[in-house]
Amino acid sequence: MNPTTDASTSLLTDMYEYTMLDAALQDGTADRRCVFEVYTRHLPDGRRYGVTAGAGRLMEAIGAFRPSEDDLRFLADRHIVSARTLRWLEGYRFSGSISGYREGEPFFPDSPVLQVEGTFAECTLLETLVLSVLNYDSAVASAASRMVSAAGGRPCMDMGARRTNEWAAVSAARSAVIGGFQGTSNLQAAKLYDLPAIGTAAHCFTLLHDSERDAFVSQIQAFGKGTTLLTDTYSVEEAVRTAVEVAGPDLGGVRLDSGDLASLAQQVRTQLDTLGATKATITVTNDLDEYAIAALSRAPVDSYGVGTQLVTGSGAPTCAMVYKLVEREGADGSMVPVAKRSAGKASVPGRKLAFRSYADGRATAEHVVAGGERALAGFHTPDGWRGLLVPYISEGQVNPEFVGHDALLRARDRRTQALAELPIAAMSLMKGEPVLPTLTQVIA
Amino acid sequence: MNPTTDASTSLLTDMYEYTMLDAALQDGTADRRCVFEVYTRHLPDGRRYGVTAGAGRLMEAIGAFRPSEDDLRFLADRHIVSARTLRWLEGYRFSGSISGYREGEPFFPDSPVLQVEGTFAECTLLETLVLSVLNYDSAVASAASRMVSAAGGRPCMDMGARRTNEWAAVSAARSAVIGGFQGTSNLQAAKLYDLPAIGTAAHCFTLLHDSERDAFVSQIQAFGKGTTLLTDTYSVEEAVRTAVEVAGPDLGGVRLDSGDLASLAQQVRTQLDTLGATKATITVTNDLDEYAIAALSRAPVDSYGVGTQLVTGSGAPTCAMVYKLVEREGADGSMVPVAKRSAGKASVPGRKLAFRSYADGRATAEHVVAGGERALAGFHTPDGWRGLLVPYISEGQVNPEFVGHDALLRARDRRTQALAELPIAAMSLMKGEPVLPTLTQVIA
Repeated sequence: MNPTTDASTSLLTDMYEYTMLDAALQDGTADRRCVFEVYTRHLPDGRRYGVTAGAGRLMEAIGAFRPSEDDLRFLADRHIVSARTLRWLEGYRFSGSISGYREGEPFFPDSPVLQVEGTFAECTLLETLVLSVLNYDSAVASAASRMVSAAGGRPCMDMGARRTNEWAAVSAARSAVIGGFQGTSNLQAAKLYDLPAIGTAAHCFTLLHDSERDAFVSQIQAFGKGTTLLTDTYSVEEAVRTAVEVAGPDLGGVRLDSGDLASLAQQVRTQLDTLGATKATITVTNDLDEYAIAALSRAPVDSYGVGTQLVTGSGAPTCAMVYKLVEREGADGSMVPVAKRSAGKASVPGRKLAFRSYADGRATAEHVVAGGERALAGFHTPDGWRGLLVPYISEGQVNPEFVGHDALLRARDRRTQALAELPIAAMSLMKGEPVLPTLTQVIA
Repeated sequence: MNPTTDASTSLLTDMYEYTMLDAALQDGTADRRCVFEVYTRHLPDGRRYGVTAGAGRLMEAIGAFRPSEDDLRFLADRHIVSARTLRWLEGYRFSGSISGYREGEPFFPDSPVLQVEGTFAECTLLETLVLSVLNYDSAVASAASRMVSAAGGRPCMDMGARRTNEWAAVSAARSAVIGGFQGTSNLQAAKLYDLPAIGTAAHCFTLLHDSERDAFVSQIQAFGKGTTLLTDTYSVEEAVRTAVEVAGPDLGGVRLDSGDLASLAQQVRTQLDTLGATKATITVTNDLDEYAIAALSRAPVDSYGVGTQLVTGSGAPTCAMVYKLVEREGADGSMVPVAKRSAGKASVPGRKLAFRSYADGRATAEHVVAGGERALAGFHTPDGWRGLLVPYISEGQVNPEFVGHDALLRARDRRTQALAELPIAAMSLMKGEPVLPTLTQVIA
């Protein structure tokens, strides 16, 4: 079962969303048409770009936003909303429209990664759910993307489940794939998102047996010589020798999970080759991040298993995305651009369009065009600009192009392609400014 | 619905747990009795102590670890385990014993926060689930505890749901309470764990209306004068004046979410008092962490709403806890202490006892006593030592003392009391060594 689709998601909110709904239903503003936008004011310290993720998963979670009887009873018992609002909630189903950046698309400060349009009532309820999904998933995809770049062509595998909340781990595996990872150790994610599942063995398996040799023999009997043996429980050198003795030269591979991985990998590679196991691969794990992966680029490593730093966003566990009302219907029925003016957190009023401009196949800038409905409708897209907003939900109908397994693979491709078109500095792990400037223009 | 109890948790694992089970069932070691222990090798950089959290929630998740038909079909279709193992899994139910630190109990490097005992087969399957829950929940509780200390007696409220995975947010709210928080904005957590739900209004509510005054009037009509109004959408000074005009001197409170909160709170307090709203409270929010809270200690603030830094562990989003086999049955039926010798990650063999020693009412050290079963059975607890391990599950039976709502409140009390007994440096936000040394002794 998938809690984001099979469970009601309607209480995955902050209380104020329900109380604002309640007040707005009473004062008559609940039906005002609104446009909310999701964006971040800045990338994490020194990051050059972010990678959008979560929207496909979010569409399923929005579909599951149907207050259950139990949810309604809770809202009533706690006196969070009035009886009138409870009746309104019984029929709740998001019937508005959502557009946004494709999953896998790079984003920058002020990129309108999601736009949610509908009545105030139906849109305000989604604030926290939208942000939870996009903030976490994009944080993981953004970190994953840097790791994959640092790994060159070598595969990166998600092994992070144990270092984050058990359900967060499931979405982390999905986001890792969007960021370019090849598989996950997490079975729930493998099942839910039809991802390759990977794994070797833990130290306990060796310790369980009376000898390391017994453990290796057992694993090979169960899974064949192509399996990957964990070789750092005791002496690595001895373990590698035993592994080849037991499996022969067709040994699939070994995993190293401790020590100075660069020198150890070199030593193990030489030993494997000397013993004839020239095709045995070396997988390394042990608190890897993008910097450690980069440092191993010249070591004879075949694949990276990444845990903690992947699922915690490698120092940036959230994207600081916000959900802001940018336009709403006025008393006369026309749409009015709005913005708060809070110190340091002012927003740009009006619905946005978003484009990326290119020159000679390289992206040159992120363009955010703001304005009233009429002004935007008349906006003529300049040559060489690519539109970044795609329709996820149109009047309540989910666009199947952007959900499900194939969409996930397309998202990974999207990241690969879009990244190749960014300025080359996007591949740098050095801290710096975003590789594209975000140019915001307001048109009348 | 609660995905940690109503959903099968049996695929919230890494694949290798199932493949190790499969190999062990084939080679005959699966039934060997084992003791696994959970501990961390170090606290996050400069932290003085950690706060245990998650075990109560974990017991429910372990109860839900019953592979569904759908889960079994997945394991079969992917050829992850053999037919024999599938049959074994059909009847899976953890029948071993688990003891560990109480929720709310401080922990230190090498503290055995959880011990899991049973056959290899039944224990190895739980590795990832155990670690996911304890690592994330304890990270949040540890951060929360520092914030609560920094806040003096002022209440701290969880408002972090939007900055972490949507289901992680639910457990974060629970962990925040263990760390001393008073309530949460997250409705799913409020419902599931019977916590006080709190909330004010968002900027969009003000922007939705034709004027700030309209928004305030609406909120007060819906929720009474005791409500808390958000006063930084436009001009704070004007908003506070409007708030008191609309609500009168009985205005419940205002929230400030931007700007220099210390000077702003002072200015708003003076204005409220001048306008006669002397009892109106001031809530501040805006990326608070323990340092920002400490810096506001002399500002006239009544409560803190904490988001990002709470749910991301304030720079330490995981506790780096590991799940290690420390003792297992040998071929002759006797228990054998075991340990890996991996570089930098060596473990201490043998099951542990854990105590805290005191002098004059203050804790002086964390004591970890390791040894074989017989040695530990004969260990005589020195005077002034307090045992830290309590029974969560005994031969498959969950101890009701440590699960559910009352246990959660006891956990919060436990943290308060235990913290008061730690050396005074525990309250310091300065980086330093753990306030208690962990003294490990191995007895024969």
